[in-house]
Amino acid sequence: MIELDFEKQNGLLPAIAQDAETGEVLMLAYMNRQAFEHTLKTGLATYWSRSRKELWIKGKTSGNVQKVRQIRVDCDRDTILLKVIQVGDAACHTGHRSCFHLVVEGSELVVSGKPLFDPEKVYKK
Amino acid sequence: MIELDFEKQNGLLPAIAQDAETGEVLMLAYMNRQAFEHTLKTGLATYWSRSRKELWIKGKTSGNVQKVRQIRVDCDRDTILLKVIQVGDAACHTGHRSCFHLVVEGSELVVSGKPLFDPEKVYKK
Repeated sequence: MIELDFEKQNGLLPAIAQDAETGEVLMLAYMNRQAFEHTLKTGLATYWSRSRKELWIKGKTSGNVQKVRQIRVDCDRDTILLKVIQVGDAACHTGHRSCFHLVVEGSELVVSGKPLFDPEKVYKK
Repeated sequence: MIELDFEKQNGLLPAIAQDAETGEVLMLAYMNRQAFEHTLKTGLATYWSRSRKELWIKGKTSGNVQKVRQIRVDCDRDTILLKVIQVGDAACHTGHRSCFHLVVEGSELVVSGKPLFDPEKVYKK
């Protein structure tokens, strides 16, 4: 049994998803104990959606799932690091490879790179 | 003026520190607006210590400061990614290079790698 400090912040720990091959940081989302256990069991990155208040199997809608190659935990056991293979290339709902595509330049945020897919096509009903 | 969504979670946003050269994720800590502004102004990673409830210039005690090479923000503007040069090699207070030195193996957490310094010598009074 892996004991993480879920109680520290309302039962939700930040989980960083990092490309297992390139080291690029793709996104950060949150896990409760259920999401963490689901990730361990299925090998697919599973978070807790704070907006929808439900378990969120990343990529279930878009097909862009994250296959987990390794899970690391920090010294305080209150942050999770997933080394993943990002299926479908883009981790971000905007179509960008990484959610971290906004770069601080002086007093502005500048978009870096281009989207790899059109979100309107992927998420259409 | 760079507008981040500090209000989303009690004024504190998670900030990931990543080695600017190797891509290794070194640690995650939290920034309030003051810490973010201090980081921008000084070029040294500055967090908000949730335990001490004070501004925390990383490495001020140990000398292991983090020189910020780039700051990225995610699509929701509620997570910060710092690309840093870690002075003194180790980012973690345990002496390990990275705080993420605990690896999930089966149902256990296994320590990966060895400390680069002795915490008792660095943090002695």
